[in-house]
Amino acid sequence: MSDNSFGRLLRVTTFGESHGPAIGCVVDGCPPGIGLAPEDFAHDLARRATGRSRHTSQRREADEVEILSGVYEGRTTGTPIALLVRNTDARSKDYAAIAGQFRPGHADYTYWQKYGIRDPRGGGRSSARETTMRVAAGVIAKKWLAAKGVSVRACVSQIGEVLPRGFDWGVVEDSPFFWPCAEQVPELEAFMDALRKSGDSVGARVRVQALGVPPGWGEPVYGKLDAEIAAAMMSINAVKGVEIGAGFAAVRQKGSEHRDLMSPQGFASNHAGGILGGISTGQAIEVSVAFKPTSSLRLPGATVDVSGAPVEVVTTGRHDPCVGLRAPPICEAMLALVLMDQALRHRAQCGDVGPVVPRVPGEGS
Amino acid sequence: MSDNSFGRLLRVTTFGESHGPAIGCVVDGCPPGIGLAPEDFAHDLARRATGRSRHTSQRREADEVEILSGVYEGRTTGTPIALLVRNTDARSKDYAAIAGQFRPGHADYTYWQKYGIRDPRGGGRSSARETTMRVAAGVIAKKWLAAKGVSVRACVSQIGEVLPRGFDWGVVEDSPFFWPCAEQVPELEAFMDALRKSGDSVGARVRVQALGVPPGWGEPVYGKLDAEIAAAMMSINAVKGVEIGAGFAAVRQKGSEHRDLMSPQGFASNHAGGILGGISTGQAIEVSVAFKPTSSLRLPGATVDVSGAPVEVVTTGRHDPCVGLRAPPICEAMLALVLMDQALRHRAQCGDVGPVVPRVPGEGS
Amino acid sequence: MSDNSFGRLLRVTTFGESHGPAIGCVVDGCPPGIGLAPEDFAHDLARRATGRSRHTSQRREADEVEILSGVYEGRTTGTPIALLVRNTDARSKDYAAIAGQFRPGHADYTYWQKYGIRDPRGGGRSSARETTMRVAAGVIAKKWLAAKGVSVRACVSQIGEVLPRGFDWGVVEDSPFFWPCAEQVPELEAFMDALRKSGDSVGARVRVQALGVPPGWGEPVYGKLDAEIAAAMMSINAVKGVEIGAGFAAVRQKGSEHRDLMSPQGFASNHAGGILGGISTGQAIEVSVAFKPTSSLRLPGATVDVSGAPVEVVTTGRHDPCVGLRAPPICEAMLALVLMDQALRHRAQCGDVGPVVPRVPGEGS
Amino acid sequence: MSDNSFGRLLRVTTFGESHGPAIGCVVDGCPPGIGLAPEDFAHDLARRATGRSRHTSQRREADEVEILSGVYEGRTTGTPIALLVRNTDARSKDYAAIAGQFRPGHADYTYWQKYGIRDPRGGGRSSARETTMRVAAGVIAKKWLAAKGVSVRACVSQIGEVLPRGFDWGVVEDSPFFWPCAEQVPELEAFMDALRKSGDSVGARVRVQALGVPPGWGEPVYGKLDAEIAAAMMSINAVKGVEIGAGFAAVRQKGSEHRDLMSPQGFASNHAGGILGGISTGQAIEVSVAFKPTSSLRLPGATVDVSGAPVEVVTTGRHDPCVGLRAPPICEAMLALVLMDQALRHRAQCGDVGPVVPRVPGEGS
Repeated sequence: MSDNSFGRLLRVTTFGESHGPAIGCVVDGCPPGIGLAPEDFAHDLARRATGRSRHTSQRREADEVEILSGVYEGRTTGTPIALLVRNTDARSKDYAAIAGQFRPGHADYTYWQKYGIRDPRGGGRSSARETTMRVAAGVIAKKWLAAKGVSVRACVSQIGEVLPRGFDWGVVEDSPFFWPCAEQVPELEAFMDALRKSGDSVGARVRVQALGVPPGWGEPVYGKLDAEIAAAMMSINAVKGVEIGAGFAAVRQKGSEHRDLMSPQGFASNHAGGILGGISTGQAIEVSVAFKPTSSLRLPGATVDVSGAPVEVVTTGRHDPCVGLRAPPICEAMLALVLMDQALRHRAQCGDVGPVVPRVPGEGS
Repeated sequence: MSDNSFGRLLRVTTFGESHGPAIGCVVDGCPPGIGLAPEDFAHDLARRATGRSRHTSQRREADEVEILSGVYEGRTTGTPIALLVRNTDARSKDYAAIAGQFRPGHADYTYWQKYGIRDPRGGGRSSARETTMRVAAGVIAKKWLAAKGVSVRACVSQIGEVLPRGFDWGVVEDSPFFWPCAEQVPELEAFMDALRKSGDSVGARVRVQALGVPPGWGEPVYGKLDAEIAAAMMSINAVKGVEIGAGFAAVRQKGSEHRDLMSPQGFASNHAGGILGGISTGQAIEVSVAFKPTSSLRLPGATVDVSGAPVEVVTTGRHDPCVGLRAPPICEAMLALVLMDQALRHRAQCGDVGPVVPRVPGEGS
Repeated sequence: MSDNSFGRLLRVTTFGESHGPAIGCVVDGCPPGIGLAPEDFAHDLARRATGRSRHTSQRREADEVEILSGVYEGRTTGTPIALLVRNTDARSKDYAAIAGQFRPGHADYTYWQKYGIRDPRGGGRSSARETTMRVAAGVIAKKWLAAKGVSVRACVSQIGEVLPRGFDWGVVEDSPFFWPCAEQVPELEAFMDALRKSGDSVGARVRVQALGVPPGWGEPVYGKLDAEIAAAMMSINAVKGVEIGAGFAAVRQKGSEHRDLMSPQGFASNHAGGILGGISTGQAIEVSVAFKPTSSLRLPGATVDVSGAPVEVVTTGRHDPCVGLRAPPICEAMLALVLMDQALRHRAQCGDVGPVVPRVPGEGS
Repeated sequence: MSDNSFGRLLRVTTFGESHGPAIGCVVDGCPPGIGLAPEDFAHDLARRATGRSRHTSQRREADEVEILSGVYEGRTTGTPIALLVRNTDARSKDYAAIAGQFRPGHADYTYWQKYGIRDPRGGGRSSARETTMRVAAGVIAKKWLAAKGVSVRACVSQIGEVLPRGFDWGVVEDSPFFWPCAEQVPELEAFMDALRKSGDSVGARVRVQALGVPPGWGEPVYGKLDAEIAAAMMSINAVKGVEIGAGFAAVRQKGSEHRDLMSPQGFASNHAGGILGGISTGQAIEVSVAFKPTSSLRLPGATVDVSGAPVEVVTTGRHDPCVGLRAPPICEAMLALVLMDQALRHRAQCGDVGPVVPRVPGEGS
């Protein structure tokens, strides 16, 4: 069926290839009356953009968003919102040499096997360029959520073996690495410079958080809030793992340690990551995401060509030595889209009747 | 909307509460002509069943499956297959004491906040009893996949701090713990006995694998095979994390280490876990799942009641000290359901035209 | 994919064959807190039931509904509601003779061509027995709608060439034919007796109406209220046509005649049938549905068998000489299900903010 | 949720307002390898276009289709196909006067009541301009179906009181009215000229047909082929009724007349319209659609404004005195989209195994 849509009630459909004429999306189901202008997208698209520092791909896209529909006199009308971004800095000649080869660790081989045809320019549809439209759609979700008191944020919480020595959300946005510990930035820059010079790449971990989510969002049993967050994150290019709350650390925990006790003053801890039984508890939603190192390296690697013959491939296009460094805005967008979609679903079934029992305040909430 | 259905083209809808009259499911979209009889379900339901050893909950359900529709003269007809299992050993009085309290780490509080009403008997809809029907539906998927040469299997690969000292798929099914190292079983039994005596519980990790999956299954970009596997696993009770292939270990990897090189003899490794760009590579699909320790403990814990007042709760029902020990058949079922659904989706869009280029044989495939 | 589910947010999945052990449905997405008991279904199921007069099929089913899930202490909990009805009066031997033949005008031939297998007993899945569960699910929708001030009703408005000489909704429920003109009942009885004796059957038209629907329900552009009503009605066995408002009479109308003028006192007419641009106007929703004459006749007819050879078939099972006579409760149920689903969808996107401008009262509203 | 998508496996999402910067669509799930170029759309868009004769609206749009994605080197790749058409001849000043009024018979009032905001320029989203993208998407479906031997066609079969005196599919495409009887064209032209001069409008009936559909397409029970055709047609602007085969004439038929007898030489008739039990029989699919007269008249009419006060409205924009005259290509497109979607769904569940019994040739097939 191909599945380029995301969400049930807030439904985002993206289209476009890395080196095609344009990428875009249609956001359907958005409530009417939300203020929306082309400039609303600039901030988050810039946060995601390539070319922002020497540590990311040098492709430089203007990423100017044209609103094609769904907005009248500056407000959403309830009809589908189409957003368009023209591709302006695609250098397809970079890829001519490898059109007949399958780059290891890329989707080249699998698209070819699935469809019998693929657009090799810049990875075509499988390129992370597609995430531009996730971020754009996410801007709309963030605006709607903000009016409900809900916000999302993300940071890079691990690069290769490097862990933060301190943690301060306040410094993340000023960091070239979305890194929560300012004093480590110089050593990370040295590390990234050496890495880029070596022609290799490295993985990263991103922490994503939602604040202000009321209890009650999430659809048991197959539309659980955590199940949909997991799918949303895993649908991002290069993601290999997702954790909610304690995540894999829960394997080593005892039940007496993991369960979050409650009192009239609130939850005593948040090992659950803000979700129980697939439904939000009112605490902070805590998600952790693993990004693999990009497979586009300047180091040669063995592969095969479309005839099955062995060849050696070297990637010469513009790539990120650590794709995770651009991921926080993408993860934020996906979390915002999941939350808004779940909020609309909750409203459909349960109305907007707020908490029916005294709400238990949450650690981190 | 409530979301008790799973899958797009093979659509499984489950219903039922832990202590209601019955649980059941409807499997819609199953191809016609598959042999199916009530006894086909017995093996996997027994593997999942409670009461199978002293290490799991002592609730003993017959779990006899009645086929209500969709099968004529022993073969599926293409119409919806309804399966029913009556609940026979529900002891709801166990729960009377806690109907007005929120057990920490359970869905009691969130169901109450979402719906303003909940069935407190045995956790109601949030009980792992629901997974019985996942396993039953999975039996149908496994049968269909087997005819395509595809199989799934799972084992417990970590219990608390304990890791396997050796790994042999051949001993898993004979182990009371689905454990891949036979010599460790006695010490695991001692560990579990001590745990149960202590009234506490512990987490576990489950490894799930699919073999024989051809290249080309998976739907970019939001229906990626790994995204749907992540959602499927995360929708299982008590799951807090999902990894594909290298998973979180990829954070520490270099690209030169992570990317799986290819030659005419096949892939040199399988860090990808059999999926690139959301589409199967033809290698083994590798999934790892984190289960939290159950929160139903005999150790008292602080919580609140429906009026918001502080209370101390002690769970007295029959529970598993390590829910992960019953999870392998559930994980297998979910993986089988995802794969069959994706296979049908692939067939819809691309027909059954096999690989269009010489297939690269896979490590572990 | 097979498609045995109906609705987006209120999702009804039915299962079961005419002569299988049971039929049933799962109603997912129902708001919590609605009072629901097995006896709530009796009235509408009796209205639909066969065997109610000598003018309908003599199959006599108890149609006792068992609530398997989703209801706790007499109220819906927001979890899926499963309903089960055992088949008790199936006489499958009636069909043995025709298992290898395709009855003209029936789904025998098409099911065989689609699936390569079919359950021939009583038409299997294609039997109107399936509509029992539509009526049962509709009961839930009617209850929810009633609390919003919305009601649905239906009558038979044509039998063969016979049209009502007068129209009084007040006599419909007392009529053996759901007929709106009491004085015509004796002649209709004579007509039906003669028809049954002749071994032939006749078509009918059903009028369906919803009252109290507020303006604003309906989803442009592919989920239009009238589009979904059309699909809902056309999905009922034997339906060949659907009209909204003026319907096919609009072909002959001038625009100056068709358009419904408005004043502060309300709409001057209702040619639109209560829907403009796919969204309710606040007037009565008016639907008309054409039912074909049943093809199960005691008159012999030419057909072929499964080998393609010519045979003559005579139907000997119990059948209705005019299937439309049992259709009003089914049409009501489908309209109620569409309306409740659309209401939930409207609430999801637009909240429950009522009319934002003074509502124009409607003719018939 | 808003519902601007159509189809399950071939999923078309349209966007755009009548006087916004552009309209467009995304076609997701299209099989790979289909030849597709911008010029493929010209023929059907011209057939639908306004301004083609003095009998339709004088708005003149270039309707040039830009393919934004999903096509590489002239062939579809299996990724989403985005199509864009810029609006170039929108004269929004025509609508300034009526922005605060509700035109009778239009969606103005209902959009306002639903969303609390509307784009009044040219009817905004509710304009028939949206059907441009249906026709464009339909071109892709027609191409795919043609390779399977399936074709669709449509004609106007009634205008007001006027019925064809003869019927010849061969003259339809040369007629300014898609009319199947050439000799009537002069009198129809006179009729339309007089109508336009009078400032009034008239309804029409469109006949739509599919040829070459194999038996077996259609999804019981809620995704029946006829149910989805009914929804597809009813979702077109101005449609008030849909018939399959005999349609409402079936109400007056006897069963012995309606049922289509079969012999080894084929079906003896096609009252069913090529569909039984919601599944295609292999005969021609026959659909009839009622279009209301447009409500945009130069004749004044009573209505209210947004404050509820009475006003008189006169429509001065460019409109069609008989919208049905442009409808045949739209109806064809919708039928083609339904058929291709159903074909993919059939292939998913049942594979491409052709008819399993000797196929009965059909009258009109």
